[in-house]
Amino acid sequence: MAAGAESGSGRGAGSAPSTPLATPMSAMSTTTPMSARSVRWERDVEEGCGGLERPLLLRRGTNTTSQMAVVGANVCPIESLDYEIVENDVYKQDWRSRGKIQIFHYQVLKWVLALLVGSVVGLIGFFSNIAVENIAGFKLLLTSNLMLQNRYKVAFLWYISCNAVLAAAAAALCTYIGPAAAGSGIPEVKAYLNGVDAPSILASTTLSVKIVGSIFGVSAGFVLGKEGPMVHIGACVASLLGQGGSRKYGFTWNWLRYFKNDLDRRDLITCGAAAGVAGAFRAPVGGVLFALEEATSWWRNALLWRTFSTTAVVAMVLRSLIEYCRSGNCGLFGKGGLIMFDVSSQVTSYTAMDLPAVVLLAVLGGLLGALFNFLLDQILRVYSHINEKGAPYKIVLTVAISLVTSCCSFGLPWLTACTPCPPELAASGRCPTIGRSGNFKNFRCPPGHYNAMASLFLNTNDDAIRNLFSGGTDSEFGVPMLLAFFAAVYSLGLVTYGVAVPAGLFIPVILSGASFGRLLGALTGLDTGLFALLGAASFLGGTMRMTVSVCVILLELTNDLLLLPLIMLVLLISKTVADYFNKGVYEQIVRMKGLPYLEVHGEPCMRSLVASDVVSGPLITFSSVEPSSASAPSWTRCGERDTTGSR
Amino acid sequence: MAAGAESGSGRGAGSAPSTPLATPMSAMSTTTPMSARSVRWERDVEEGCGGLERPLLLRRGTNTTSQMAVVGANVCPIESLDYEIVENDVYKQDWRSRGKIQIFHYQVLKWVLALLVGSVVGLIGFFSNIAVENIAGFKLLLTSNLMLQNRYKVAFLWYISCNAVLAAAAAALCTYIGPAAAGSGIPEVKAYLNGVDAPSILASTTLSVKIVGSIFGVSAGFVLGKEGPMVHIGACVASLLGQGGSRKYGFTWNWLRYFKNDLDRRDLITCGAAAGVAGAFRAPVGGVLFALEEATSWWRNALLWRTFSTTAVVAMVLRSLIEYCRSGNCGLFGKGGLIMFDVSSQVTSYTAMDLPAVVLLAVLGGLLGALFNFLLDQILRVYSHINEKGAPYKIVLTVAISLVTSCCSFGLPWLTACTPCPPELAASGRCPTIGRSGNFKNFRCPPGHYNAMASLFLNTNDDAIRNLFSGGTDSEFGVPMLLAFFAAVYSLGLVTYGVAVPAGLFIPVILSGASFGRLLGALTGLDTGLFALLGAASFLGGTMRMTVSVCVILLELTNDLLLLPLIMLVLLISKTVADYFNKGVYEQIVRMKGLPYLEVHGEPCMRSLVASDVVSGPLITFSSVEPSSASAPSWTRCGERDTTGSR
Repeated sequence: MAAGAESGSGRGAGSAPSTPLATPMSAMSTTTPMSARSVRWERDVEEGCGGLERPLLLRRGTNTTSQMAVVGANVCPIESLDYEIVENDVYKQDWRSRGKIQIFHYQVLKWVLALLVGSVVGLIGFFSNIAVENIAGFKLLLTSNLMLQNRYKVAFLWYISCNAVLAAAAAALCTYIGPAAAGSGIPEVKAYLNGVDAPSILASTTLSVKIVGSIFGVSAGFVLGKEGPMVHIGACVASLLGQGGSRKYGFTWNWLRYFKNDLDRRDLITCGAAAGVAGAFRAPVGGVLFALEEATSWWRNALLWRTFSTTAVVAMVLRSLIEYCRSGNCGLFGKGGLIMFDVSSQVTSYTAMDLPAVVLLAVLGGLLGALFNFLLDQILRVYSHINEKGAPYKIVLTVAISLVTSCCSFGLPWLTACTPCPPELAASGRCPTIGRSGNFKNFRCPPGHYNAMASLFLNTNDDAIRNLFSGGTDSEFGVPMLLAFFAAVYSLGLVTYGVAVPAGLFIPVILSGASFGRLLGALTGLDTGLFALLGAASFLGGTMRMTVSVCVILLELTNDLLLLPLIMLVLLISKTVADYFNKGVYEQIVRMKGLPYLEVHGEPCMRSLVASDVVSGPLITFSSVEPSSASAPSWTRCGERDTTGSR
Repeated sequence: MAAGAESGSGRGAGSAPSTPLATPMSAMSTTTPMSARSVRWERDVEEGCGGLERPLLLRRGTNTTSQMAVVGANVCPIESLDYEIVENDVYKQDWRSRGKIQIFHYQVLKWVLALLVGSVVGLIGFFSNIAVENIAGFKLLLTSNLMLQNRYKVAFLWYISCNAVLAAAAAALCTYIGPAAAGSGIPEVKAYLNGVDAPSILASTTLSVKIVGSIFGVSAGFVLGKEGPMVHIGACVASLLGQGGSRKYGFTWNWLRYFKNDLDRRDLITCGAAAGVAGAFRAPVGGVLFALEEATSWWRNALLWRTFSTTAVVAMVLRSLIEYCRSGNCGLFGKGGLIMFDVSSQVTSYTAMDLPAVVLLAVLGGLLGALFNFLLDQILRVYSHINEKGAPYKIVLTVAISLVTSCCSFGLPWLTACTPCPPELAASGRCPTIGRSGNFKNFRCPPGHYNAMASLFLNTNDDAIRNLFSGGTDSEFGVPMLLAFFAAVYSLGLVTYGVAVPAGLFIPVILSGASFGRLLGALTGLDTGLFALLGAASFLGGTMRMTVSVCVILLELTNDLLLLPLIMLVLLISKTVADYFNKGVYEQIVRMKGLPYLEVHGEPCMRSLVASDVVSGPLITFSSVEPSSASAPSWTRCGERDTTGSR
């Protein structure tokens, strides 16, 4: 059995808080018979978790569960999950007592659930994409039409109020219904998969708020992405499917009881996170690698294979739905393919002469990425003071940022002069484009002219990235314009992340990286489309510090394998440079949220720590046979409960 | 420090044989002072490893080393490597006593070595590729010229004797100089990375024989690949660089002493194996995933990052050398790009109607893959009887297989009728091609006709695969011809693997899978190029049972991301089907070689094993403080020695 055979122990992120309790707990579970334990569970559930005299390691208390106990989420704010199998007598007896049918049932169910997670996440990813394209498309189309009628003030008012209303709605949802849904969600999922459970991050309310809030947030024109939220959505879907719906709403199935333990739930949530990435970027292999690289330190090959199957289902669902939309049944969704930013049609060639510029780009990208992490940290600290004051403050902050963003995206094109169209494109009617997408946006420009800034800013983020990556358009965006856009996007990305909407970091980072790269390409006179792509890679390496998964995601986004050596080089350099200054952005946020996530590399001081440094006495021990009627010490109660309802 | 912080324990493949000794060993290293140990090492080296009264777990004896002892390879045939860090007092003291400069030195060296491995493996991969293309190209060119002069008998004699001489040379090398170089090498590397060390698999003679033998073997027209050997070559290079050359030849450096332990050497060899795949397939990401999925069960994120850097170097080396060859400086090497079998220019579209045929293909691929594994197992058993009879028998067997292969590849085209060229290609002079490569080989055909079988068989394997993958050529290869080619390649692949030359399994499997897929495509009237690719995927899934890495390798080979969902589906089905029958081909070979590799999933009977089932008494224990002058029990001597010379 897969679950039974696992003996890997990974980094053991969750072990730290449970260290003082671990030994007595496992000693107890070795000797207490199953039935006695379940009796005590039920009693404990009724009693609640009061009167704790247990030693406090963390600010808000800690907890430990064995892999057979089901995690309670209501009472203790942060829990430590134990993914290690304690192969004691009880465990072995439990496995031996199971019939062949039960084991077959478990195996089949494991696979059915993984594939179900893939389909559901694929559907959610696709429909949230359609919703965004239609809401944002309608907003931009109406703005554009009003401007064509020279009703500029009305257009601006419509645009800014549309954005503000969408932002306020998203913020209200996140504030009043699902506070855990704000932000990216990747840090929480990362912490969960490494053994740290925060309250209600995988609840059904969080899931619904995350979906709706993310659609509203992206449609509101914020400089944020839906990729991080999709990872969180995938994890939520997996968690809810694994426990057979939400117990809080009386919606649960008994035959899913095998999955009500930390280990199987963790496996399923790993699949969910991978499916999220696959659904967001349409990058199934990237999703598997993301789950492997960023999210989980407890890895084994069986999980690789299951994760791969899940993302394969996502890819197939997306492929067939996109094929269906090609016939124009999905409103403004457009006719995009499985590749989001396809650059394979461009002939990008590079020689050894380009190498110094590429290295320079990578170094600068690493520096700016590290600076991004530093500034984000500072800004989040300021925001946390504002957000702590109460729900209305959160909404006001969100609307304020929305207003600033709207002013930027409408005002900067206003300040930019019109550019004459390239003659060959003007003749073929491809410039200016009067409508929603296209490289050359008409924005109060005379016929035959286009507004370069509007092509990037008064657009969905996806279209802006597509424009930046496009090759053969070296003269389309001038240097001052790119500089202004880069500065605006970099700052807006920084100030947007902390507001109370579901906000991914991938898109802002790619957007600012691509504009920076294109700027450098324009300055050095090299291929701007290529440099935009490499700039995005350098910023991703500089902020996220992932390598293999970012590399594969970029390949799956752009479909140009010939650039692989260059992308790898850029990632290598930018990560190395940025690692010199600070940690990856997700690790920073995990730390800021107070989740007790253990680093890959321990601090040097930890080498000499002994148990007495982190626990306070008196030590409570169990005798090797403990009478089941004896009341357990009160601090063990919290660890063994059965209230998964809220998740 | 990376090495110090590692606490992962993976599957622990190597732990099994060392189990009976593990406890006393670690107890000893806790208490014995460093200096006393090294004194004993030296004495043991002089004494050798005689008079062993230790309990025998394996047929030929077993051994265990701590992570600080250096592994000896001369005396005990199979060793168990211990990658677990025992964080005892000695270990901590050793780390604390190191100065900052030493730690910096270690860190820098670790990276320099990883990048050096990348460059060297990239160079070897490239130059062996050039050698093969030139030797095989010259052979085929001369054959073709002789046939154009109607001197068929001379052509046949030249062709068959060329192949036989090359085969005999490769077999002689493998038999007399480096017996460990025969075969794929992936099973041995897989076993090594999972903690089982077989004698001289990473020695410098093995490396040189593997390189030269692989060039000869591939040039001899065998149905085998150079991909498996490249993985072995990468591992050898990493091992030799890590120990600073071969001690046997007095060629070693003292400042590499940090790397003379199991853990650091394992890390480096992981990088080497990944670099091998990257160099063989020009697939850097696939290399990382191969190392992750197939080779190692001891994984951590720091290693992912280092492996990635190594393969990035490989990709850059290959990219620049191929760029250099484009100007025609490399003889017959040709003008290929970084993508070996580029199909991205073909417009392959598929609809839901194709799905049943794809599923059928995947199921049949899984069945034929499992059959391949079964038959290979049987054939290897027969071959081992022949090979055991002595060196001349090995060479005779190799030459015999070479003669059969030559007769097939020269005889089958002879039996195939000529096909008239498609008129549009004949007009443009692209059919028939009179020369080395090209889709339409002229083989004693009248002008305007080509021989389809010769286009596949009288060619290098790489060119044959390229022809099979090529799209828009549905009528090029007829159904009977494809059936004959598939049967020939499938059987030749089976009988070739066991002969005494370095032989990879990837190419035979891809070749037979592609011909099978193309056959099915031709039978169902669907896109033959697409089905050839999917057929290759289904055979790879059915024999190797790798998923993510095969998927990425196929993507990097063909550069068509749009096929990703289909490839994933095919891999999923074929692996599932084949898993029902037997194990992956590499695991089979590992087991047949008698390497004590632990399965991912333990046998059910193992659940109830206790220590007394696998050890025999009397149990020797140490007291907690042991006087350093006391003579250690003789069975520990073998574990602590310093003779890495032969590797």
